[in-house]
Amino acid sequence: MSAAYVHGYHPRENERLQDQAGTLVDLLHSDTSYPRGSVVLEAGCGVGAQTVTLAQRSPTARFTSFDISADSLAEAKRKTDAAGLSNVQFQQADLFALPFSPESFDHVFVCFLLEHLSRPVEALAILKRLLRPGGTMTVIEGDHGSAYFHPDSSAAQMAIQCLVELQRRAGGNALIGRQLYPLMVEAGLEAVHVSPRMVYVDSSRPGLVDGFTRKTFTAMIEGVRESAIAAGLSDPAAFDAGVRDLHRAAEGDGVFCYTFFKGVGEKGRRA
Amino acid sequence: MSAAYVHGYHPRENERLQDQAGTLVDLLHSDTSYPRGSVVLEAGCGVGAQTVTLAQRSPTARFTSFDISADSLAEAKRKTDAAGLSNVQFQQADLFALPFSPESFDHVFVCFLLEHLSRPVEALAILKRLLRPGGTMTVIEGDHGSAYFHPDSSAAQMAIQCLVELQRRAGGNALIGRQLYPLMVEAGLEAVHVSPRMVYVDSSRPGLVDGFTRKTFTAMIEGVRESAIAAGLSDPAAFDAGVRDLHRAAEGDGVFCYTFFKGVGEKGRRA
Repeated sequence: MSAAYVHGYHPRENERLQDQAGTLVDLLHSDTSYPRGSVVLEAGCGVGAQTVTLAQRSPTARFTSFDISADSLAEAKRKTDAAGLSNVQFQQADLFALPFSPESFDHVFVCFLLEHLSRPVEALAILKRLLRPGGTMTVIEGDHGSAYFHPDSSAAQMAIQCLVELQRRAGGNALIGRQLYPLMVEAGLEAVHVSPRMVYVDSSRPGLVDGFTRKTFTAMIEGVRESAIAAGLSDPAAFDAGVRDLHRAAEGDGVFCYTFFKGVGEKGRRA
Repeated sequence: MSAAYVHGYHPRENERLQDQAGTLVDLLHSDTSYPRGSVVLEAGCGVGAQTVTLAQRSPTARFTSFDISADSLAEAKRKTDAAGLSNVQFQQADLFALPFSPESFDHVFVCFLLEHLSRPVEALAILKRLLRPGGTMTVIEGDHGSAYFHPDSSAAQMAIQCLVELQRRAGGNALIGRQLYPLMVEAGLEAVHVSPRMVYVDSSRPGLVDGFTRKTFTAMIEGVRESAIAAGLSDPAAFDAGVRDLHRAAEGDGVFCYTFFKGVGEKGRRA
């Protein structure tokens, strides 16, 4: 597990990211599809949680999905093979030393990647160079500071803050969703449009109670328990109380809110 | 100014509520309209910030709008008169001692009222009694805990917390938006559906930067400066730093997020 990543590499995390993609796929991706013949780069595809959706929604586009981790790529390939997809090729590569030619892609897709990087604008600028003029870049990130719930709980807020702090110490930024607009503008993208994708969960939406509040968000927080305690950010009892209160928000009279942000920008034709 | 209200009664507050209604009218109200001949009760209409919109969108419905404050009602009437509306009648009344007959309304509309009440479920149950079986209740509330922004600022969060605490001390609840679903269910409404209405503001949306971030939200926080200092919740320098940081979020690379919640429920036909 790279020190620069807080989550995304453990088997249980894989499961969580799958649950997340399955539950949120319409919310996050229903408005992304690429025209016939488009050449699309997926940056930091990880275990392919988004890759299958992406490639299925644009069956006549051709995708190149890269990641730094060979293990993740192997898992991603298993997924696209199982889905019978033939329009994705995978490549192991480091974002900061990519083997692609400038202006060789029509579109770039980035999902849950920038949150792990200490230089997100530099990453976007690198990816922008790979876009042809007039091409688009789509960026999706969450924001853990957008999580609130009923009943409110300072213990649960503290447990979330542990993840935010761990991610910060690893060079990332768990509050990056709200920053997509200024980051994309700073990277030189044009006509940037950011739209929030809020997940609102009450007990009239049992699929989201289970799929998002419990198995995505609370599971993610539970996943950093040992790290948070080892780092001295919480003692076990306090952390467990926070997790208990997150589960409490999944009960009949509970409510849970979280927001993802999706930005789309263009590479100028005069760039 | 009633001790039970933190905002809504001062002239500057009137202006703010108007700005808010003007900016947010589509977001909050575009999906509310009542059929020809409907008899609709607007509870706690205040200075009529929502009344004009409501009555204009349902020109063939008849509205009764009540409030406890005669001054607010006079202002509300001036507004509907100026808009040339003839389908609204105003009545001064206390929510907890209403002069209306049971089951005398087809629909009830409640906006920015519950946040000021210490017994919101009792209020909803009272209003539900006035509904005919099969009638609907629409409830809209904000949630100050849903506010977050870039750059993040603990000073700004503290200034917001001052308003939350003042409202709590006055018997209200500034975090009530997220609770609409359980509150409406507890009041016995059926088929309750809550939808969040998130206001996302970056500099590509200059109307919202000015109309919402500055003139609605930040103005509201500025409006409790003296009360917060008098109550010992903040010293002047800390509060002013918080307000400065809220204005900072309205600059070119700033972002501001806030969410309103809108719930619609029915009175059961077997009630």
